[in-house]
Amino acid sequence: MPHRILVIGGGAAGIGAAGGVKAADPRNEVTVYTEFEDVGYSPCGIPYVHGKEIDSFERLFLAQKEAYVQAGIDVHYETWVSSIDLHRKVIDVVGEGEVHWDRLVVATGFEYSDPGVPGGRLDGLYYVKNIRRAMEWDKVLDTVRSAVVVHATPLGLEMTTALAHRGIDTHLVDPQPWALADVVDPDIIAPVQDSWQEMGVHLHFNTTLTSFNGTQRLQSVGTTAGEIPADLAVLSTHKQPNVTLAARAGLRTGPTGGLVVNERMATSAPDVYAAGDCAELPHGVTRVGVTGLTGSHAYAQGKVAGFNAGGGTKRYQPVYVPWGTPAGKWVIGGASFGETLATALGLPFVVGRAEGISRARYYPGVRPVRVKLLAEPDQLRLIGAQMVGQEGIKERADFLATAVKFGLTLRDLAAMENVYSPAIGALNEPIVLAAQNGLDSLAGGG
Amino acid sequence: MPHRILVIGGGAAGIGAAGGVKAADPRNEVTVYTEFEDVGYSPCGIPYVHGKEIDSFERLFLAQKEAYVQAGIDVHYETWVSSIDLHRKVIDVVGEGEVHWDRLVVATGFEYSDPGVPGGRLDGLYYVKNIRRAMEWDKVLDTVRSAVVVHATPLGLEMTTALAHRGIDTHLVDPQPWALADVVDPDIIAPVQDSWQEMGVHLHFNTTLTSFNGTQRLQSVGTTAGEIPADLAVLSTHKQPNVTLAARAGLRTGPTGGLVVNERMATSAPDVYAAGDCAELPHGVTRVGVTGLTGSHAYAQGKVAGFNAGGGTKRYQPVYVPWGTPAGKWVIGGASFGETLATALGLPFVVGRAEGISRARYYPGVRPVRVKLLAEPDQLRLIGAQMVGQEGIKERADFLATAVKFGLTLRDLAAMENVYSPAIGALNEPIVLAAQNGLDSLAGGG
Ligand SMILES: Cc1cc2nc3c(=O)[nH]c(=O)nc-3n(C[C@H](O)[C@H](O)[C@H](O)COP(=O)(O)OP(=O)(O)OC[C@H]3O[C@@H](n4cnc5c(N)ncnc54)[C@H](O)[C@@H]3O)c2cc1C
Ligand SMILES: Cc1cc2nc3c(=O)[nH]c(=O)nc-3n(C[C@H](O)[C@H](O)[C@H](O)COP(=O)(O)OP(=O)(O)OC[C@H]3O[C@@H](n4cnc5c(N)ncnc54)[C@H](O)[C@@H]3O)c2cc1C
Repeated sequence: MPHRILVIGGGAAGIGAAGGVKAADPRNEVTVYTEFEDVGYSPCGIPYVHGKEIDSFERLFLAQKEAYVQAGIDVHYETWVSSIDLHRKVIDVVGEGEVHWDRLVVATGFEYSDPGVPGGRLDGLYYVKNIRRAMEWDKVLDTVRSAVVVHATPLGLEMTTALAHRGIDTHLVDPQPWALADVVDPDIIAPVQDSWQEMGVHLHFNTTLTSFNGTQRLQSVGTTAGEIPADLAVLSTHKQPNVTLAARAGLRTGPTGGLVVNERMATSAPDVYAAGDCAELPHGVTRVGVTGLTGSHAYAQGKVAGFNAGGGTKRYQPVYVPWGTPAGKWVIGGASFGETLATALGLPFVVGRAEGISRARYYPGVRPVRVKLLAEPDQLRLIGAQMVGQEGIKERADFLATAVKFGLTLRDLAAMENVYSPAIGALNEPIVLAAQNGLDSLAGGG
Repeated sequence: MPHRILVIGGGAAGIGAAGGVKAADPRNEVTVYTEFEDVGYSPCGIPYVHGKEIDSFERLFLAQKEAYVQAGIDVHYETWVSSIDLHRKVIDVVGEGEVHWDRLVVATGFEYSDPGVPGGRLDGLYYVKNIRRAMEWDKVLDTVRSAVVVHATPLGLEMTTALAHRGIDTHLVDPQPWALADVVDPDIIAPVQDSWQEMGVHLHFNTTLTSFNGTQRLQSVGTTAGEIPADLAVLSTHKQPNVTLAARAGLRTGPTGGLVVNERMATSAPDVYAAGDCAELPHGVTRVGVTGLTGSHAYAQGKVAGFNAGGGTKRYQPVYVPWGTPAGKWVIGGASFGETLATALGLPFVVGRAEGISRARYYPGVRPVRVKLLAEPDQLRLIGAQMVGQEGIKERADFLATAVKFGLTLRDLAAMENVYSPAIGALNEPIVLAAQNGLDSLAGGG
């Protein structure tokens, strides 16, 4: 029996959900609501257009609006959903009134946390998200001389790199002692920070934002380390689950503030699913909830939520979070926990490190690959990994997340076979070296 | 108690063994014999120097001779071992006489199989192996106008690409219907063959070598498809285990012709170990013996053999053979079996294929990545994979070999998390797409 399914949100999760609904049963009716002018574009590309690595915003659109019509997905653009009534199974849509649902998917995503300082309404404060706004801001960037990036989150790393690429005098401000300090270990981020300095970026760590200063337009950014003259502030603050609507309706949220879902992506209310950055998922190693993962997670969760809402049965598994991004002149990445996070969580671990290389030592373009593996001290099962290098970081991160998930040990990785071919891989795979070094340091008692 | 250990062979296996001997106990005495002028260079780089991608042969040396002296490894260069006496535990060394051993490691490597046609002693026939000869041949290449590469083995692929890069009119001759037909499936090699044609390479498949023609110097190569005028023939024929010495001494060989070893790399004779291309190892999926693997395998096996010969205990595990190499304008790679080999072995399998991409669709430099996964039809456990693409083929091959080894299924890979970051990885990892497509085609009965 086909269902009438509403999806709130047109980001990666919402679009994945609409596809999932149709995959479960093409006769299902599905409507997607988004406050934005577009769906099916990649926000992930925005920093790279700003940085002039991608030549136009048009490239970021994955599909024409017509394609959604063809697929039987009814998208309501620039449409705000103002409330959810779980009891009567309706939502309130501004300009449309009450709309009934058999099943609802909440995919309202994230919002940047409020920096909570004076001056937050000045012109010149840029929250990167909507592609139309990004297109407008891109013109502004041509006139910007000095910019401050507020907080060294993943987006902050990308925007810092992009603005520096573009020749803008760029400052990065973060209260922690190094960039991405919640996730990344200092030995992994160090080369990135060095490379930013080579690119002329001014780094302000251990520095708290205190104000945005100016009349009408931003003129400077106030910090605990002094005032920074600036035409632009990019607010890449922490991503928070956007659950205002859902929480008001009575859906349960967890300790991270994200919506609680089970493995079918079903929320605490019958017939209501959630997916993407508004949901909280268990981490595979600790089973503790995490939120604000990536667009790739949002899309995959959306597909599962939509499929189940549409009458199918799929499970979404606990997450091991492979991640990776270019930053400065490097690529950093990893899976699950690094030392900083494992220590904060009180997880015991042993470490294996190596300074490997990406190609044969003698092949042009060879670059260092630093790999660090964390394992639980008993069986030496991998619990996380971090890397800095260039080529192959993304593929290694995917692999290592899978290795954590399937319980591979340092011994397994130390005995791993690897491709040696001068232009594409070194005699010794850096992951293997790190595992062997880990075992050696244990054998040596070190 | 330290041992007196002799290693016959100074290739990857022999050098790995010498290191293993010292790692087991630094007091062990170890002597390496090689007929060549050098050890510790990378033959793998030779095709790339010929192809002008690497600018000098000097770069291929990993260590100075002095480094081996420092490490306590006594290398006898240009020294031929003429026989092994298992009973009296001596070898016969030309110019040195009988030398006693407590433990022996046989690492005599491979030899190219004899093409078995007339004209095999003409000038202009090049067997690529010894770096000194390669340096001499590199000068000859400056004068070569037309070359024939005999057999599309892994080295044949590299030499074809290298000679074409260098601007030599290049012909590839192989009796099989496509390149590397023992290992690689036609859908994987097709783009490579197309790219060779774009590079001006003449492909002669289903074509058997019949003669080398000329007086003194090569003038043409005879084939079943006609005569090819040529100044040079590169003989990249099948690699055979070089076991003449060992077999004469009475060491057991297996069905592939390689020396039979157990998981400690011990041969059929007490205190005698073997490693590298002269040894035969069980394939992890079938447990059938395989030989002629890679330099990376040879090195790892050498370390295990040397460590055990030196009084330690290490195991070498069955192989799942990740492989990869640039070829033409592409990179190909895989792990364990492709369709051709699985079919030849009578293994039942199902297939999942995908045409993925290496970066975000909109990021400059994005390239296709074709992935094919083979799984056994019952539990859908992976038994092999093949790929053609560019970036990340080597890292995916390493991963997929590990996935086969640890029994991961198509379902596991279909649910795999992956990094999405525009410059380094696409929203959908090609491996995941291939696994999902495989499951879909099963569900659809296709
Ligand atoms: C600049 C930028 C760069 C990024 N880079 C990467 C990257 O490199 N890799 C990666 O994997 N991910 C990246 N992301 C993805 C990001 O980090 C999130 O994980 C992802 O956007 C989450 O998707 P989502 O669909 O859950 O939420 P969102 O993308 O936040 O979408 C939420 C949707 O809900 C709608 N909405 C919310 N409330 C309402 C309402 N009341 N009424 C109507 N509509 C509503 C919004 O209009 C929007 O369509 C990037 C995102 C941005 C903005
Ligand atoms: C041109 C070329 C390119 C290659 N490319 C790659 C690649 O890209 N990736 C990769 O992984 N591998 C590559 N290889 C490695 C190769 O395919 C083998 O796997 C590897 O060389 C095997 O190492 P081995 O030590 O077992 O044998 P070998 O390298 O064959 O070494 C044998 C040694 O034994 C010595 N020897 C033999 N008999 C005697 C005797 N009676 N007395 C004294 N000494 C003796 C020889 O002098 C030599 O030192 C390449 C090899 C070549 C030649």
